[in-house]
Amino acid sequence: MTDFVELIARKKAGRELSTAEIEALVRGVTDDSIPDYQLAAFLMAVCWRGLTEREVLDLTRAMADSGERADLSGVKGITVDKHSTGGVSDSTTLVLLPVLALAGLKVVKASGRGLGHTGGTLDKIESFPGFRVDLDREERIAQANRVGAVLCGAGEDLAPADKKLYALRDVTATVDSLPLICASVMSKKLAGGAGILLMDVKYGSGAFLKTYDEAEALAKLMTKVGREAGRVTDCLISSMEQPLTPAVGCHLEVREALKILHGSREGDLYAVSKALAEKMFALAGLSADFDGLIAGGKAVDKMAEIVRAQGGDPAAVFEPERLLPSPCRREILAGAEGFAAAVDTRAVGHCCCLLGGGREKKGDPIDRGAGLMFFPRLGGFVKKGEKIAELYAADPDKLDAGERALEKALTLSAEPAAVPPLFGRP
Amino acid sequence: MTDFVELIARKKAGRELSTAEIEALVRGVTDDSIPDYQLAAFLMAVCWRGLTEREVLDLTRAMADSGERADLSGVKGITVDKHSTGGVSDSTTLVLLPVLALAGLKVVKASGRGLGHTGGTLDKIESFPGFRVDLDREERIAQANRVGAVLCGAGEDLAPADKKLYALRDVTATVDSLPLICASVMSKKLAGGAGILLMDVKYGSGAFLKTYDEAEALAKLMTKVGREAGRVTDCLISSMEQPLTPAVGCHLEVREALKILHGSREGDLYAVSKALAEKMFALAGLSADFDGLIAGGKAVDKMAEIVRAQGGDPAAVFEPERLLPSPCRREILAGAEGFAAAVDTRAVGHCCCLLGGGREKKGDPIDRGAGLMFFPRLGGFVKKGEKIAELYAADPDKLDAGERALEKALTLSAEPAAVPPLFGRP
Repeated sequence: MTDFVELIARKKAGRELSTAEIEALVRGVTDDSIPDYQLAAFLMAVCWRGLTEREVLDLTRAMADSGERADLSGVKGITVDKHSTGGVSDSTTLVLLPVLALAGLKVVKASGRGLGHTGGTLDKIESFPGFRVDLDREERIAQANRVGAVLCGAGEDLAPADKKLYALRDVTATVDSLPLICASVMSKKLAGGAGILLMDVKYGSGAFLKTYDEAEALAKLMTKVGREAGRVTDCLISSMEQPLTPAVGCHLEVREALKILHGSREGDLYAVSKALAEKMFALAGLSADFDGLIAGGKAVDKMAEIVRAQGGDPAAVFEPERLLPSPCRREILAGAEGFAAAVDTRAVGHCCCLLGGGREKKGDPIDRGAGLMFFPRLGGFVKKGEKIAELYAADPDKLDAGERALEKALTLSAEPAAVPPLFGRP
Repeated sequence: MTDFVELIARKKAGRELSTAEIEALVRGVTDDSIPDYQLAAFLMAVCWRGLTEREVLDLTRAMADSGERADLSGVKGITVDKHSTGGVSDSTTLVLLPVLALAGLKVVKASGRGLGHTGGTLDKIESFPGFRVDLDREERIAQANRVGAVLCGAGEDLAPADKKLYALRDVTATVDSLPLICASVMSKKLAGGAGILLMDVKYGSGAFLKTYDEAEALAKLMTKVGREAGRVTDCLISSMEQPLTPAVGCHLEVREALKILHGSREGDLYAVSKALAEKMFALAGLSADFDGLIAGGKAVDKMAEIVRAQGGDPAAVFEPERLLPSPCRREILAGAEGFAAAVDTRAVGHCCCLLGGGREKKGDPIDRGAGLMFFPRLGGFVKKGEKIAELYAADPDKLDAGERALEKALTLSAEPAAVPPLFGRP
């Protein structure tokens, strides 16, 4: 029997744990036999001492095996999955689902719900009334074969050890450990069963990782773990120093994604979606053309097909203006002038949360119409009195709370500031 | 309201916590409002990042105030307390109680029970049949005034926050943090109320602290905290690289302490007891003489008076051979020859535990007759076939377990090895 006090002590002393010890640990998490306080001490010791690549791989594998691994052998063709480490106004999944399917790939994607300052794809896709995210295994495989893309919630049995550890990390300040983030993300991806894994790793003021270096380290680790586990794996590193689009909140963000499916080639959401798609095509050995796949309404039709296949009403796919913002509206004007030098992207996401468009904690209800348009872009000039944001909420109290959260979100400077590149080292 | 996730995150990042935050933390420990998993993560973060002297002082004070502080204002004279950080065959308290009382000091001592490889003074003193350790406040003060020394258990209300934190540290591998050790020890000493605090800080193979440097760092920290809290405080640092005497186990150890009270001036227990007594006399401004106080049966009579005052039968004080070892006996012979180069003192203590003379966990029963005589002293020559230990237990199975624990306790070398000094840097 593994002595967990001894195991914690060894990690605390910076020693490497054996494969058997890590497997025993994950078993103890899964069957609730290790008390939370011992796991919490272990998690903090990992934040302190880190894990070797071998330990991360063992931990990821054991967590992936803590539930049932999805069997995608019934899907005909190349199965792919993408994952973003989380950001604000990050709706690339909604763009990629139809585009990748049109390229002939089979997208089997398990997504999550929004929490804190970040949004969740499940919340956004449910902006189409009736959309079901709880397809069972047979439905998922059938839809992947028939439509080419399926978007679901992660079932209770997908890497349950990760669910428990994540909940504990959240309340013990042990979220921001690269090995733990890697094991958490990759265990779900490995259990999800897709053959190609593409990770969108974000850094900056709206991301979990604040610096490019951290993002790069996580990208390398995830790539290594994915490949060692036999999956074609790659990462894209992109900036989350400002929201991907001005829109934050379900309805508003879905409209931005639909703009691109309708042919717009503007903005960072377009650039990141295209970069991700092209990386995915390269990994799959395809010579597909992102813009060509979208052209002529094909992507809009494919999106409508996906929505319809999962029981949703696709009317808004064709008429995005049906996705109404919440009724109470307030404009925020610039109190000074200057060049937009920095955006506290986390504060922008938190503003959306306070407007009712996000969740403070799991299970909170969400107002899909709530959110904001935040217009300044880094490097641009803001005039005094210019409208910098439009807030939408169900009631004026929420507008007040959102406005307060936004107060220090924008830093203006007299001189033009350097704009960090969307891709590559700033 | 204090956000404890944020508080953990700040300590994890190496930041200093405010007095108010530390007080809120200790309140949350005391009233059980902070979940164990958050405390466990905090404790590991403290092991990682340490605490500043100011934080240790705040933590110690807050823990001392988590229960009722003993009011010793009813005691006439100078109140003193001593504490050992724990070792094997460490019975200095039994020697010091009568000697300090004979010097005119008032010893009000709260002691603990044995756990793991270390013994506890309460278990040893209860070798005198009928001895009561649960005196109430009035009884303690009356006895201090009448007899000059009183030995009790730490009541439930003495620094309850420390009891909870200690229990959690024990199961989360967070015991060996100097700031946490300091706060744990000193909170109980401050709450105990004595005016002079003398700490016996042990290092070596039988101590919590393995090196002299660690012992010195803890000694400095405890001295600083004690003095800042207004108590005359000093420390003695001594080696626990071998047991203080050959005897390990309640009856056997009490016999060693009684030898000194009967006039023996041999061995490390004598040396450490005398050093502690002389340091205490100096702190109290007394010019008392350790050997002189013992001479002529005075210390034996005072010890008997203390035992009688607390309801115990003092017959064995005068006739130590009444303290019988357990009936099953086994001799261990040296399998090779050489100079005693190292003693795994922890293993010797653990052997006693397995013989029934100690506790694996709190609340286990204890066999006061069980234990061992472990004869080799560091630097001495051991001949092949020479008796190196005598084991005593209630049954042969326990003898087997104890013998196995002792197998690697002694390291012999062909060359004479350097013997670490009892006091001072090795």
